[in-house]
Amino acid sequence: MESIKVFAPATVANLSCGFDVLGCCLDTVGDEMLIQKNDLKTVRITKITGQDLPLEADKNVAGVAVKAMLEHLNLEQGFDIEIHKKIKAGSGIGSSAASSAGAVFAVNELLGKPYSKNELIPFAMQGEFLASGNAHADNVAPALLGGFSLVKSYEPLEVISLPSPEALRVVVLHPLIEIKTKDSRAILKQTVNLKQAVQQWGNLGAFISGLYTEDYELLGRSLKDDIVEPVRSILIPFFEELDKLSAKHALGFGISGSGPSVFALCKGDENAAKVYEEFQEFYKTKEIEFDLHVSPVNPEGIKIL
Amino acid sequence: MESIKVFAPATVANLSCGFDVLGCCLDTVGDEMLIQKNDLKTVRITKITGQDLPLEADKNVAGVAVKAMLEHLNLEQGFDIEIHKKIKAGSGIGSSAASSAGAVFAVNELLGKPYSKNELIPFAMQGEFLASGNAHADNVAPALLGGFSLVKSYEPLEVISLPSPEALRVVVLHPLIEIKTKDSRAILKQTVNLKQAVQQWGNLGAFISGLYTEDYELLGRSLKDDIVEPVRSILIPFFEELDKLSAKHALGFGISGSGPSVFALCKGDENAAKVYEEFQEFYKTKEIEFDLHVSPVNPEGIKIL
Repeated sequence: MESIKVFAPATVANLSCGFDVLGCCLDTVGDEMLIQKNDLKTVRITKITGQDLPLEADKNVAGVAVKAMLEHLNLEQGFDIEIHKKIKAGSGIGSSAASSAGAVFAVNELLGKPYSKNELIPFAMQGEFLASGNAHADNVAPALLGGFSLVKSYEPLEVISLPSPEALRVVVLHPLIEIKTKDSRAILKQTVNLKQAVQQWGNLGAFISGLYTEDYELLGRSLKDDIVEPVRSILIPFFEELDKLSAKHALGFGISGSGPSVFALCKGDENAAKVYEEFQEFYKTKEIEFDLHVSPVNPEGIKIL
Repeated sequence: MESIKVFAPATVANLSCGFDVLGCCLDTVGDEMLIQKNDLKTVRITKITGQDLPLEADKNVAGVAVKAMLEHLNLEQGFDIEIHKKIKAGSGIGSSAASSAGAVFAVNELLGKPYSKNELIPFAMQGEFLASGNAHADNVAPALLGGFSLVKSYEPLEVISLPSPEALRVVVLHPLIEIKTKDSRAILKQTVNLKQAVQQWGNLGAFISGLYTEDYELLGRSLKDDIVEPVRSILIPFFEELDKLSAKHALGFGISGSGPSVFALCKGDENAAKVYEEFQEFYKTKEIEFDLHVSPVNPEGIKIL
């Protein structure tokens, strides 16, 4: 195989009680990438549409991720990468992760799969490090593996795939304001109250139990975050209003990634459509442009087109 | 029914990564309690064997728990409670919880089950409050429900029953020294590093996933605690040595409750027997008396005898 086209999905990370450890993969929002072998022994970003991002491979998350992988393979094969961005940079739904994960997935396919999907995660994390100064895995893991991913530990890196109850739908509202992941991390307190930490791990444990038992109500009751959300939500316009709006039809609500996108987790298409509509009606009266998405959880991750 | 005899099991709470939220129920260690209706409209502790504990109902955890329950029922029925303690007070394997939970379970049976097991938890917690100044649920919940219990939240109280993989065995070593739960709580730092909190919730999430998927190795890798264990283990003689000794045959090792007991989680009888033997050989060369137990996880909780 000389070339491959893939769909690289958006992801919701930092899922409330699962700050830094839990993410899930979306199905209706994502980039397209076309990757082909070249004879130049170099990795080139040949084209980017939809966003203004660096074409220089060492400054592009896809370039950096693929180079990390080729270095690990000790391989001099070159690749040309075309990226058609649909996910806006800085949206908080894993734009950089989609490019990093999509690129290493595609190159792995073209090379005959020397790595498992799980083994690709560390390479994709190199792209995340370039993008945010933090090689986090909770976007690239669900992008590669699909469904819900739990980052059990970083040293050593261990990612666990969790089940995705079928009726889950995610509504994402992206207010078109810029919050840099770096800044969003900087405002976090570096210590937390033990009591709050205990609450958080009780909720995360319950959320994971709910994924296995398909207990949608429990998933909703567990989507709480008293540690990060109170700090970061300040940066998101009308966060509280959206939270309240979502309460009637969604299971839970929170910040996607480090914002500014927010997500509502819903059961079934009907509830998701109502939340979508209410968000739309509310936000269009505000002075802020926004994108709105609705998606099932994508159980598969990156797809070959 | 006028009288009932129950087995009230020991429990391991604060299970490593599950500080304050996760406990499991033992099967081979526990008290026996005989409870019968009386005509006096008062709750009496008529006999205690095996331990020197208060016979006055208001100073006895079983008395307090039953009184809380009767008050909630607005019922003037009296009960006589006999407690035959096999679990030593202050051992860290839920001695007070066994008495509180056993008493409310038995009284509930005698009254024709006005409450579900889950609904009995808050009453039993009143006994825990008397014993330690903290109405925690991670001993009484698994004593009542069996298996592994997750305390999702305290306000409102919500406890989730988790599956128990069949081959799990628990080896408990109880060095006969006294650590009061109050003191053991007092030495805890009230703030934790965000990074460590994230590690802890990654491990707890993974442990819960491992219970559902019966992934014994994952359970072992997840039984870690960098927050509470480093502080409390100082109070436990030869903690590090036991930890190292257990590593060959156990899945994981940690402090039971607030100590001084420690537990090793093992897969299968053979590994448990080896850990038991190694603990015994090691500790009998020390100047500290000790009890040693080995038990499957008790999926049922309190049993009618």
